[in-house]
Amino acid sequence: MNQALSCEQTITNGDVYDLDRAYVFHSWSVQSALKPLVIAGGEGCRLWDYDGKEYLDFSSQLVNTNIGHQHPKVVAAIVEQATQLATIAPATANLARGEAAKRIVNLAPEGFNKVFFTNAGADANENAIRMARLVTGRDKILSGYRSYHGNTGAAIVATGDARRVPNEYARGHVHFFNPYLYRSEFSATTEAEESERALAHLRRIIECEGPSSIAALLMESIPGTAGVLVQPAGYMQGVRALCDEFGILLILDEVMAGFGRTGRWFAFEHFGIKPDLITFAKGVNSGYVPAGGVILSDKVADFFQDRYFPGGLTYSGHPLAMAAIVATLDAMTEEQVVENADMIGKEVLGPGLAALTAKYPLVGEVRGMGVFWAMELVSDAAKRTPLAADVMGKIKAALIAEGLLPFVVDNRIHVVPPCTVTVDEAKAGLAIIDKVLAQFA
Amino acid sequence: MNQALSCEQTITNGDVYDLDRAYVFHSWSVQSALKPLVIAGGEGCRLWDYDGKEYLDFSSQLVNTNIGHQHPKVVAAIVEQATQLATIAPATANLARGEAAKRIVNLAPEGFNKVFFTNAGADANENAIRMARLVTGRDKILSGYRSYHGNTGAAIVATGDARRVPNEYARGHVHFFNPYLYRSEFSATTEAEESERALAHLRRIIECEGPSSIAALLMESIPGTAGVLVQPAGYMQGVRALCDEFGILLILDEVMAGFGRTGRWFAFEHFGIKPDLITFAKGVNSGYVPAGGVILSDKVADFFQDRYFPGGLTYSGHPLAMAAIVATLDAMTEEQVVENADMIGKEVLGPGLAALTAKYPLVGEVRGMGVFWAMELVSDAAKRTPLAADVMGKIKAALIAEGLLPFVVDNRIHVVPPCTVTVDEAKAGLAIIDKVLAQFA
Repeated sequence: MNQALSCEQTITNGDVYDLDRAYVFHSWSVQSALKPLVIAGGEGCRLWDYDGKEYLDFSSQLVNTNIGHQHPKVVAAIVEQATQLATIAPATANLARGEAAKRIVNLAPEGFNKVFFTNAGADANENAIRMARLVTGRDKILSGYRSYHGNTGAAIVATGDARRVPNEYARGHVHFFNPYLYRSEFSATTEAEESERALAHLRRIIECEGPSSIAALLMESIPGTAGVLVQPAGYMQGVRALCDEFGILLILDEVMAGFGRTGRWFAFEHFGIKPDLITFAKGVNSGYVPAGGVILSDKVADFFQDRYFPGGLTYSGHPLAMAAIVATLDAMTEEQVVENADMIGKEVLGPGLAALTAKYPLVGEVRGMGVFWAMELVSDAAKRTPLAADVMGKIKAALIAEGLLPFVVDNRIHVVPPCTVTVDEAKAGLAIIDKVLAQFA
Repeated sequence: MNQALSCEQTITNGDVYDLDRAYVFHSWSVQSALKPLVIAGGEGCRLWDYDGKEYLDFSSQLVNTNIGHQHPKVVAAIVEQATQLATIAPATANLARGEAAKRIVNLAPEGFNKVFFTNAGADANENAIRMARLVTGRDKILSGYRSYHGNTGAAIVATGDARRVPNEYARGHVHFFNPYLYRSEFSATTEAEESERALAHLRRIIECEGPSSIAALLMESIPGTAGVLVQPAGYMQGVRALCDEFGILLILDEVMAGFGRTGRWFAFEHFGIKPDLITFAKGVNSGYVPAGGVILSDKVADFFQDRYFPGGLTYSGHPLAMAAIVATLDAMTEEQVVENADMIGKEVLGPGLAALTAKYPLVGEVRGMGVFWAMELVSDAAKRTPLAADVMGKIKAALIAEGLLPFVVDNRIHVVPPCTVTVDEAKAGLAIIDKVLAQFA
């Protein structure tokens, strides 16, 4: 910090805002339209600015602070590691890295015994795709239109949502329609129909693209940014069966859904299936230090035992990130954070959001589990017309004004507090949403 | 740390090695052939293992610890930020982020006033490419065969070296031959010839690919992993002129060469030119926390003032990384670390490496400046035959056995200690190289 801003008492929201606007170029934005919120500090599910205004974090930032803000054990682990050895090249053997990998393997299903670390979720998917292409000798990657897999060159074209379009310079990526009963692409009216027709569609895509050209099918276990699209019963099992039938590797992206968010360590546990590769980031250390990675099934790991793997990153297995993983996973286990997320979903958020759906025609549908929910807002309940962007903007502003930091995407409020959220905090958040929806009903 | 490994006295090199081999999948490797070096801690240019064996770090890990290991001011800044607010979403305004951006802008040339932060160098190049494509409305990216720009989908196909080939699924990337007089592609025998012919070749590539299809020319100011290829006089100015002539944006990759490595804050300062976009990572905070970014010229930043920028990352402008940048750049300035790198290059490494070249026919050529040097080892000096891989492996092992941690690429030893290296340390490192070369002469 420079002299002028070195003393906390002298810092104002205005100072930080002005500094940001002068020098920082922001992501996913029109620069002239930005009004970034100033945040000074946080603890658990609360954040505050320099005026002392508090916010209840119902966003987990970018759905990453699963353990809440400033967990003392994770902060202590970062401090300890920084003091001992902040950075070391990935080619070395490092204690924190080995310990982090061991813990992740212990949480993964039987038959997953190696971890490749990356900087974040995008490069986790990049490397999983790379592994799948090398193992199969095929190049195409299938993924859903309703998906987000990261922003780097291969990851962004594997992405299905609109952020793909201006970045679509790579080839070899084919997209299919994934299930979404509320806005079915298959004229389905029941969950069973949606699942069956989506699987038939996926089979046709595989047949038309040529199974022998398809290396992997990449999907989020529960598509997150696309709207917390919990897949209908039978769908994920059907996807696994199609992959097996055609020798296609299944990569499950657990970047947003993993590490407690759905009330399980991994979201795919809900569906009773196992992928061939698992990608992760965010919740693994709550983003306290940038980290991501790939968990390799033995089948994939064995392939590379005597073959060269042509991928890597300067900060792969970064000691600070690894120490944060070790502390996060240990604390989540000891403090039963995943169990808490499950309970909050079943006892507070699930029933609470269902009550809001019943109360306001504005709420078209609510989907989710654990602390991973989306409320779909519509201007016409019968036609399911998405609420207009300007109204969503006003709702977002009203929620913030009431002290709730929301995660708003398109016509949806994603209700995604930290996995550590208490019953009282979850209820307080629901009450704010209730109050604001009443103003727009 | 778990119980068994919680007490430093009980940890052995063997423990850490075994843990690594059990659970960690390594980059750029055949897994069964790995023998990762165990490192327990470090300070300045020294590292040590759990047996107390010391190494002089002549690699800066992956050429990133420009400020050396465990700089107390950088560690203190990380500790302070971790204690205050470890993570916050990029959409917010954050004090450390604003301060970091301000410092980088202050070091950049006139006309560069905004910074977009990423996780590392690869996604810095990804985003610079994205910006160039949007600003120009063109899609092709030119880059040198002898280059490395990162490992994600667009970055890896922009890369020129052999790591590109198994990852080459994207299109829109065209490669040209960049100057390398010692192994000229242009039958040149003088620096002036190499520069002139390389520029003529680049002009022909631009003409044949169609100037109106080329968004950007991406190059490392001094190609690093390719062999510290200091470009011949006039070449970089010629590249700038070609870009201007054809409306092509010039992206200079300063990931490895930037932030002091060449004895200047930016390597392009040596050539008296300005790019349109600058990418960085590594040295900006010595990799103590993963970080990278793009410095935007006003021309590029102005374009996005009223237009949407479709790129972003969860950990963009991560507070821990930002605090490390602020402390690193402040300490480098106060302690004249860049000036030290310049002096070491001119007074110790330059003359010392020249003496080794004169002494051993094994040394074909030495190139570099500051603390950024490559020694090219050859089995036949006249034919310039690269020394065989197995001999290079033995030289690397001998250097490590003598307590020097080298950075070996192909038939080259890259001599790349931290910018803080002292005269005595630089001389000690040269003495070890001398001793080992004598064994293989």
